[in-house]
Amino acid sequence: MLSKINVSLKSRSYPIYIGDEVLADSQLISSAIDSNQVIIVTDSNVAKLYLKTVKQHFLKNECHTFILSPGEKSKNFVELERLLSFMLENNTNRRATLIALGGGVVGDLAGFAAATYQRGINYIQMPTTLLAQVDSSVGGKTAINLPLGKNMVGAFYQPQAVFIDTSTLKTLPNREFNAGMAEVIKYGLINDAEFLDWIENHITDILALKNNTLNYIVQRSCENKAKIVSIDELEQGVRTILNLGHTFGHAIETALGYGNWLHGEAVAAGTMMALSMSWRLGFLHKEQIEGIKSLLIRLSLPIAAPAQITPQQFIAHMSKDKKNIDGNIRLVLLKNIGAAFVTSDYLKEVLLETLENHDF
Amino acid sequence: MLSKINVSLKSRSYPIYIGDEVLADSQLISSAIDSNQVIIVTDSNVAKLYLKTVKQHFLKNECHTFILSPGEKSKNFVELERLLSFMLENNTNRRATLIALGGGVVGDLAGFAAATYQRGINYIQMPTTLLAQVDSSVGGKTAINLPLGKNMVGAFYQPQAVFIDTSTLKTLPNREFNAGMAEVIKYGLINDAEFLDWIENHITDILALKNNTLNYIVQRSCENKAKIVSIDELEQGVRTILNLGHTFGHAIETALGYGNWLHGEAVAAGTMMALSMSWRLGFLHKEQIEGIKSLLIRLSLPIAAPAQITPQQFIAHMSKDKKNIDGNIRLVLLKNIGAAFVTSDYLKEVLLETLENHDF
Repeated sequence: MLSKINVSLKSRSYPIYIGDEVLADSQLISSAIDSNQVIIVTDSNVAKLYLKTVKQHFLKNECHTFILSPGEKSKNFVELERLLSFMLENNTNRRATLIALGGGVVGDLAGFAAATYQRGINYIQMPTTLLAQVDSSVGGKTAINLPLGKNMVGAFYQPQAVFIDTSTLKTLPNREFNAGMAEVIKYGLINDAEFLDWIENHITDILALKNNTLNYIVQRSCENKAKIVSIDELEQGVRTILNLGHTFGHAIETALGYGNWLHGEAVAAGTMMALSMSWRLGFLHKEQIEGIKSLLIRLSLPIAAPAQITPQQFIAHMSKDKKNIDGNIRLVLLKNIGAAFVTSDYLKEVLLETLENHDF
Repeated sequence: MLSKINVSLKSRSYPIYIGDEVLADSQLISSAIDSNQVIIVTDSNVAKLYLKTVKQHFLKNECHTFILSPGEKSKNFVELERLLSFMLENNTNRRATLIALGGGVVGDLAGFAAATYQRGINYIQMPTTLLAQVDSSVGGKTAINLPLGKNMVGAFYQPQAVFIDTSTLKTLPNREFNAGMAEVIKYGLINDAEFLDWIENHITDILALKNNTLNYIVQRSCENKAKIVSIDELEQGVRTILNLGHTFGHAIETALGYGNWLHGEAVAAGTMMALSMSWRLGFLHKEQIEGIKSLLIRLSLPIAAPAQITPQQFIAHMSKDKKNIDGNIRLVLLKNIGAAFVTSDYLKEVLLETLENHDF
């Protein structure tokens, strides 16, 4: 099974291919790359599993491989400069194509390297984690972290194509798969209530990693994301709703130190906080939130922030969020399931209450 | 006197203001900035001379200043991360405006910081060296260096406006002024033979730093650059001719270590090499080159590369040039004075001869 979604961005439009044998499909992959030089960026875990499969498509190219240590800690300036210097040492030119093979860390870092090497070269995303497949590989957001804040340095830079092989999800540690589900559930919550129902009704098949089920959740997530990104590439409006749970979540990640919680885990807890705040403002019923909570528990995801993070720490980290304008913390909240909105217009006490009452 | 040039780039068009009292013009400068937050990036030399003048326009803003060490050595990843972290520490948000006050190093680094901080914020160029006024502040090229190559990491990212105060040229060390003249002469050589005649006829007034003369050379240079950039923003065609002398020049800078020769000095020697190669290929008369040589000597600029750089070193550095495609070194050469072209189609022996015979 192979499906194709188009991300419509005028001259920078590109296809997303989704299926369970995509990485082995030499014809499909070769058709998207017309460079002689190819740089594959991956991490040591993914390299063991898929590097050979991908490399075989480039036997006739000048192909170099750059391998990162796995994990969020690699998404920094030191690794970025190391990658860019590696490319220059190998005389990589402006017509080269960079391939990001791996999860969100590989995609974000490699994408930013492609955006900035000689002021921009072509790149391809080959996401191998659920999180990357449904979220970070689509939409052109690239970034690295600063010690004080996640994804604070980066570029909007679109790939030439995204190749999603859902069979890679079967080699993913359970914990990482579950973390990715936090982003899948997000699409239901912000924009697609019907999809949320579907997820709740098929959670057993999802946890059993059934092929068709995996293809479906990835495809429907990508359709949701592609639609929003096509309307608002540079996040000046509606795209902001994709950050549901992320303002709280990034604060958790930064407070705990990168890599202690997975991004999706922090988003799950952050989503519960956004729902709790929406309820405090009168938008949701308690039962609706209980339903989401049960779903997250089913997926072994955290449903509250770690108790040691104080409201003051949250406020300090959230004050640095990219969405903020002139000092107010902007939050994505829900008017209803499937209907997100963005606001900085709320009583500070309500935010403090939300931060003080970790457990819903 | 105040003149205005428009850089036409559709939704990203912007004005260049040129005059001898621009930095003190509060009304003009305030009209271009609608942010509450302003970050001024400058170096310690320029700060002593102009920081107070510029800061006074922002008494009602939240204004922070970041000061670099002067010189090419600051254009690296360490300083970039330091600047970006400084912005984040001060809770700089996406609506902030960054001001690059200084020469090419400040403009390139600060521009790249603006391009990448939270995936892009507004910025303003206030160039204070001749080189920056006639070249690096216009056209949206931002970059930092890698140890192995100059300007290898960066972005095309246009400012909201450029404010050029030609009175700053009177506080510039002679050596830096002369180095900037190498780029002024470049416009004559590649595209504007009439301007080159004018320069030769007014060299005494230029060296005397007469107000009207300075305004005129800056304005005419910017007009030339704006025209070329408007046609080819991303350097996929004609914009490449702006690199006359730069392929050889960058190799000199990299071989000597950044900061030993000024960029314009390396460009002057590199231009002589490009002219020499053009002559070897039968495009120029010896007398034409002698004329340029005399002009460069008049400006105390180098007319040949340092003897210690071997042809092999040149080739190694030039092989990493961003213009190259599939292994061939692409060069900007002249068919005639005022008529540049780009080629990688030449006998390697001719390049070697050029590299071996440093003196023309």
